[in-house]
Amino acid sequence: MKHTGKAIITCAVTGSIHTPSMSPYLPVTPDEIAEQAIEAVEAGAAVLHLHARDPIDGRPSPDPALYMQFLPRIKQQTDAIINITTGGAPGFSEDDRMAGPLAASPEMTSLNMGSMNFGFWPLADKFDWKHEWERELMLGSKRFPANHNFALIERIMTELGEGHGTRFEYECYDIGHLYSVKHFADLGLIKPPFLIQGIFGILGGLGAELENFFLMKQTADRLFGDDYIMSCFAVGRPQMKFLAQCALVGGSVRVGLEDSLYIGKGELAVSNAQQVRKVRQILDALDIPIATPEEAREILGTKGGDRVAF
Amino acid sequence: MKHTGKAIITCAVTGSIHTPSMSPYLPVTPDEIAEQAIEAVEAGAAVLHLHARDPIDGRPSPDPALYMQFLPRIKQQTDAIINITTGGAPGFSEDDRMAGPLAASPEMTSLNMGSMNFGFWPLADKFDWKHEWERELMLGSKRFPANHNFALIERIMTELGEGHGTRFEYECYDIGHLYSVKHFADLGLIKPPFLIQGIFGILGGLGAELENFFLMKQTADRLFGDDYIMSCFAVGRPQMKFLAQCALVGGSVRVGLEDSLYIGKGELAVSNAQQVRKVRQILDALDIPIATPEEAREILGTKGGDRVAF
Amino acid sequence: MKHTGKAIITCAVTGSIHTPSMSPYLPVTPDEIAEQAIEAVEAGAAVLHLHARDPIDGRPSPDPALYMQFLPRIKQQTDAIINITTGGAPGFSEDDRMAGPLAASPEMTSLNMGSMNFGFWPLADKFDWKHEWERELMLGSKRFPANHNFALIERIMTELGEGHGTRFEYECYDIGHLYSVKHFADLGLIKPPFLIQGIFGILGGLGAELENFFLMKQTADRLFGDDYIMSCFAVGRPQMKFLAQCALVGGSVRVGLEDSLYIGKGELAVSNAQQVRKVRQILDALDIPIATPEEAREILGTKGGDRVAF
Amino acid sequence: MKHTGKAIITCAVTGSIHTPSMSPYLPVTPDEIAEQAIEAVEAGAAVLHLHARDPIDGRPSPDPALYMQFLPRIKQQTDAIINITTGGAPGFSEDDRMAGPLAASPEMTSLNMGSMNFGFWPLADKFDWKHEWERELMLGSKRFPANHNFALIERIMTELGEGHGTRFEYECYDIGHLYSVKHFADLGLIKPPFLIQGIFGILGGLGAELENFFLMKQTADRLFGDDYIMSCFAVGRPQMKFLAQCALVGGSVRVGLEDSLYIGKGELAVSNAQQVRKVRQILDALDIPIATPEEAREILGTKGGDRVAF
Ligand SMILES: [Zn+2]
Ligand SMILES: [Zn+2]
Ligand SMILES: [Zn+2]
Ligand SMILES: [Zn+2]
Repeated sequence: MKHTGKAIITCAVTGSIHTPSMSPYLPVTPDEIAEQAIEAVEAGAAVLHLHARDPIDGRPSPDPALYMQFLPRIKQQTDAIINITTGGAPGFSEDDRMAGPLAASPEMTSLNMGSMNFGFWPLADKFDWKHEWERELMLGSKRFPANHNFALIERIMTELGEGHGTRFEYECYDIGHLYSVKHFADLGLIKPPFLIQGIFGILGGLGAELENFFLMKQTADRLFGDDYIMSCFAVGRPQMKFLAQCALVGGSVRVGLEDSLYIGKGELAVSNAQQVRKVRQILDALDIPIATPEEAREILGTKGGDRVAF
Repeated sequence: MKHTGKAIITCAVTGSIHTPSMSPYLPVTPDEIAEQAIEAVEAGAAVLHLHARDPIDGRPSPDPALYMQFLPRIKQQTDAIINITTGGAPGFSEDDRMAGPLAASPEMTSLNMGSMNFGFWPLADKFDWKHEWERELMLGSKRFPANHNFALIERIMTELGEGHGTRFEYECYDIGHLYSVKHFADLGLIKPPFLIQGIFGILGGLGAELENFFLMKQTADRLFGDDYIMSCFAVGRPQMKFLAQCALVGGSVRVGLEDSLYIGKGELAVSNAQQVRKVRQILDALDIPIATPEEAREILGTKGGDRVAF
Repeated sequence: MKHTGKAIITCAVTGSIHTPSMSPYLPVTPDEIAEQAIEAVEAGAAVLHLHARDPIDGRPSPDPALYMQFLPRIKQQTDAIINITTGGAPGFSEDDRMAGPLAASPEMTSLNMGSMNFGFWPLADKFDWKHEWERELMLGSKRFPANHNFALIERIMTELGEGHGTRFEYECYDIGHLYSVKHFADLGLIKPPFLIQGIFGILGGLGAELENFFLMKQTADRLFGDDYIMSCFAVGRPQMKFLAQCALVGGSVRVGLEDSLYIGKGELAVSNAQQVRKVRQILDALDIPIATPEEAREILGTKGGDRVAF
Repeated sequence: MKHTGKAIITCAVTGSIHTPSMSPYLPVTPDEIAEQAIEAVEAGAAVLHLHARDPIDGRPSPDPALYMQFLPRIKQQTDAIINITTGGAPGFSEDDRMAGPLAASPEMTSLNMGSMNFGFWPLADKFDWKHEWERELMLGSKRFPANHNFALIERIMTELGEGHGTRFEYECYDIGHLYSVKHFADLGLIKPPFLIQGIFGILGGLGAELENFFLMKQTADRLFGDDYIMSCFAVGRPQMKFLAQCALVGGSVRVGLEDSLYIGKGELAVSNAQQVRKVRQILDALDIPIATPEEAREILGTKGGDRVAF
């Protein structure tokens, strides 16, 4: 693992799994996304991981026009690194998933490193759903795997990585995903430092036990030596525990309402910024400084905030 | 891990990934499958993991009638436990995957514990293909993930497990797959002892490094305590190394031309039995006895060779 | 590991390795020891791990009379669990090491679980020594191992454990020390729950890398299941990092000037209480509550603060 | 770990812990030691790890004259690398431990990397002792730790390593011992490749569980990268299991009556060579070739069999 000396805080502002009925604080309109994103940067986030949503009913949307309603505003008011996901949402075509990032040409994009079961259907009975699409999203997760096939991964690396100079947040939900990163690294299609985003607690991937963090780190150490930066998050309740763990070993952290809607046991977070402040409290107690956006650019090797298409 | 005192040798006779152009010794007709299966049992295998193939061109087939051409013959000449896969092959529908096992009502069935990328397209350029379907199979593996979704897993557990008393070979290609086994165990849908089949070396899953065997074992120990039996295999060259590893810790082993076509470096195995004899040589050197089919039945808790539908 | 829900803070107030020339804040007189101990409890410590020192020149002393100058005062002003070390100091005879605890009959005693090299001679050139014994102590650590032989361990378990109902802080400096605890547990000489104190960073034992914390925990999990409570500390600079690590997995922590003289990089701690407050800041940020002395008694199974001989 | 492609078989012919009453096959006279050593090399050993014993009653002896009764004969009849221990025996002074190796100036010497409890007193009641010293040796192991202090380690590195060009078998009984090797490597006093001899099953050190082999290997990988050669052994019954384990990962092996008196469950080995043949059977089954003495010299970087003092 590369020791960077500072923790990079990524904030994943809205995602495509949590839905409006689950929390009134989940930002879905361009205005809400922009406001929460900007506030998160003010609180200490250096990277914003962004999805777009349909402002009418909050469902995930691939429409680049929606991205363009909040990206310029965020760019104007912060110097954060913008990361536009290629993760898409259940039901998106591959072209859908490429549309936003290809239009925005961002400094970073998230890249899921493997197909997998991605189950959250047990939530279907736990909420009163305002929109039918919400329940369908939950139930569909039992039947439809997340499709991040090798051909798509290669396309993203080629079109966005080589084509736009966009760098990657390699989302790894299981140990084998590290080997898939390694496969493309060995082919020379991607270059270090690799930002490995370890993800814990998705049903279908690694469970949210801290032991698994070390399994992932020791495997990444073996595969990549000093050529990678470790970051991680867990979904739901153990969120902050995993952030503390990754920071302790010298890694970076990701927070945000995409990953957890809570700020404490049974208590909804009222904003993304609140989670940023919470993780900063932990980092402060551990005497770990945070990276500014400029420092994060240097660490991650991104192309610069002025070389994007928004 | 449950210490059974004896190693159970499973032989996976033909599978659905290797193709006739890759080895002339791969059994594809019912006669070939029956003969190699019987010879493998004579050599020491206690469990036969079986797929059917179209006798015309060797492509994987879901047709129960094909199974019925070799199952009775194997049953007549051996007392091995028969394991009919639900893994199917690329392109099979879920009903296709259920057809053979539902018709045969076998003592065991293999059950893939997660969707995943399953890439072997780099082989596409390494052989002269006799059949176009072979190359297409290789190339397709870059684009189409293996779909083992939760709904299908649950269906298999319900229809075969509860419905037919069939027990499972839980195929785990990554650490997260253990958590998926755990999910259904916690729901009470499946019962111990769980036969965990760790699989190493598939591009998309865990790499074939022995460290990963221990990651899987230590995770399974944490999740299942003494309620599981460990078995494993690696595909291709490291096959025998992983079998030795699993046997060393007190586990079982799986060999067969489904997993590797080779018997040594660059040397094709001339039969499944040859691989059984090879692993027996290792087990003998390590003073590890093998389980007879009857002993394997006791260890695995199967319903008995007389309670099948063939 | 037993999940206790609360972290027990042990404070090791003075020890026998750090010396007066290394920090003016190291308590050495009975008054200083009592005052810093009491302040540490007020700051949140539930257990006080205590050594005595000669008030004249600060050298470690086995004299029970010295213990009796601070123990009653601490007892009067706090309800903390008192832990009198049997670790002694270089040069102490075994009877010396027993003298204090046998006289005080404390609720707890620390018990080193193995002989080992214990090297801190590189410090010999880094300080201006006021007393010749200080330099000799440093230099001697290259030549004289710490002698915690099995016969002594058994004597301590018998005379203090069985004889006085004193419970143990099992100091484990290496993975093998866990097996030595296991040896005596299997003999029935000691009873769970075992308080395993993992110690990291002594030259001769495990290095202060967080990976080693997990090696120790996973081994203890294998050997003791839920029959142990994990605590740990590292010496010197990584002190707080290890405390955070142990707390993150649900364990307890030990601070104090015995373990580190510092509160930050290059900055001496002005008191034991300052370190207690520092670790509490970390625990607070992680939302981990601390155990009161009464709660610690329940968790550790000690005999009670009223059943001691002071 | 450095991958050497071949396994080096070291045979530890007699040691200083097993005694004549424990097995009639334990070689103790110079003739017996020479004969068994030569036969072991003929069976495949490339390195001979040697201690001397008093021919009268078999007790360990530091007398260089005794070494000189078997060393020249072994040298004449084999080309094996000779490794003269500095481990000595309980009761030896440091000068005693240096005497043999200083007189012989061997290519290699074994070097215990840490003081420790080294308990085998439970054997005291399990044999009919012919000699009183045997029982005393057993009982003494409860009271007297093995003293391998840093000053002695440094002396051995300086006088034998720098002075005689002798290279080291670093005997590591616990994970912390690797850090002690690292300490001297960082000082530049010793040079790679380091032959790490992991030892499992001594009461006081790491237990003989295969998990511990991987703890040691992963720690050594982290500390030494490719600058070390892994070898290992376990004492007593799990001996061969550990040899197979180490060979499986590409390491070397050590056998011999010093480490185990048995060849199978309850069956005494009739010679060192019998154990060499047993491990060769395992290596053969695993398709792992063995190193000749000349190949071992190249791998280990020893000075050559002609540059010794016998
Ligand atoms: Zn996302
Ligand atoms: Zn199969
Ligand atoms: Zn102490
Ligand atoms: Zn020896």
